[in-house]
Amino acid sequence: MRVLGVDPGLTRCGLGVVDGGTGRSVTCVAVDVVRTPADADLAHRLLTVADTVEQWLDRYRPDAVAVERVFSQHNVRTVMGTAQAGGVVALGAARRGLPVVFHTPSEVKAAVTGSGRADKNQVTTMVTRLLRLAARPSPADAADALALAICHLWREPMRARLAAAEARAAELARTHKARLAAARKAADTTGSAR
Amino acid sequence: MRVLGVDPGLTRCGLGVVDGGTGRSVTCVAVDVVRTPADADLAHRLLTVADTVEQWLDRYRPDAVAVERVFSQHNVRTVMGTAQAGGVVALGAARRGLPVVFHTPSEVKAAVTGSGRADKNQVTTMVTRLLRLAARPSPADAADALALAICHLWREPMRARLAAAEARAAELARTHKARLAAARKAADTTGSAR
Repeated sequence: MRVLGVDPGLTRCGLGVVDGGTGRSVTCVAVDVVRTPADADLAHRLLTVADTVEQWLDRYRPDAVAVERVFSQHNVRTVMGTAQAGGVVALGAARRGLPVVFHTPSEVKAAVTGSGRADKNQVTTMVTRLLRLAARPSPADAADALALAICHLWREPMRARLAAAEARAAELARTHKARLAAARKAADTTGSAR
Repeated sequence: MRVLGVDPGLTRCGLGVVDGGTGRSVTCVAVDVVRTPADADLAHRLLTVADTVEQWLDRYRPDAVAVERVFSQHNVRTVMGTAQAGGVVALGAARRGLPVVFHTPSEVKAAVTGSGRADKNQVTTMVTRLLRLAARPSPADAADALALAICHLWREPMRARLAAAEARAAELARTHKARLAAARKAADTTGSAR
């Protein structure tokens, strides 16, 4: 399975493609950062991000796209741009029928370092080690994109199993309720026929 | 000039097309609200919004798109969805080479009611009156989309004149600085030749 991880942003948008092998082995396929000028028109900055992501989707043909889920703990203006960039990335993937999953920063940190509160340096160190890279990916957005892809590869099987189990449980509950309703109706009919 | 106003959102996204005539006269061409189910996948909700906006761009061929600028004064989760929806709308317009301008809610309110702090009811009343509509647009997102388009039609000429004046001033400043530098250099050369 191949995953494109995206750390969305307008100033810097991290992109990382990772292949998952057997067990926990992961391989880096590509990593880069798209930058758009701060003085450019917002719509054109979004267009640059969207076009680059579409080129990556065409070139690397991932099976899924993992995007960082944004929270507004920082500067409001930055967060809005980040959310908008994440939106156009998700749109590009959805247009190609690819599954898009959003992971929170703490899920990503926990997946690669074991702690949801790890710092950027620790994330970069683990990404470099896990992917056996010759050099630390830089800037941090590049390492974050790779971490997102790894997080998705490792969490997805569990998430899919959970979702399937929940769907089965809901189906069982529906069947049970329908049988109960049928039994009650039959009892009422018998009652009123008496 | 024809403007598509968009009040972005995932649950409800207001769309309104308005034609500007001579002076302040404005005419409603179309208005509607796109809804996406809250239990749908985020990427698919964005896709529905993006596809509907593209259909409107094809059908009504506006000269510009006006989008509400989002602030995070409300619920964080809602605001993120709103920003993402606004992002895909801006992208669709940018892909067609259309100018996209973001207006703040208070700019929009001030344009149609004279007060940046007008309530939703007042905005709807003024939109109904200005566009001579037989009925009040509903829900409020529909009225907001029309108000955004009117705001853009009325503010844009002034905004464009201001931008042109600022560009001219910056150009004059650049020319002046270049002349000053050349004069200084000439003086230095004369000085050292002495």
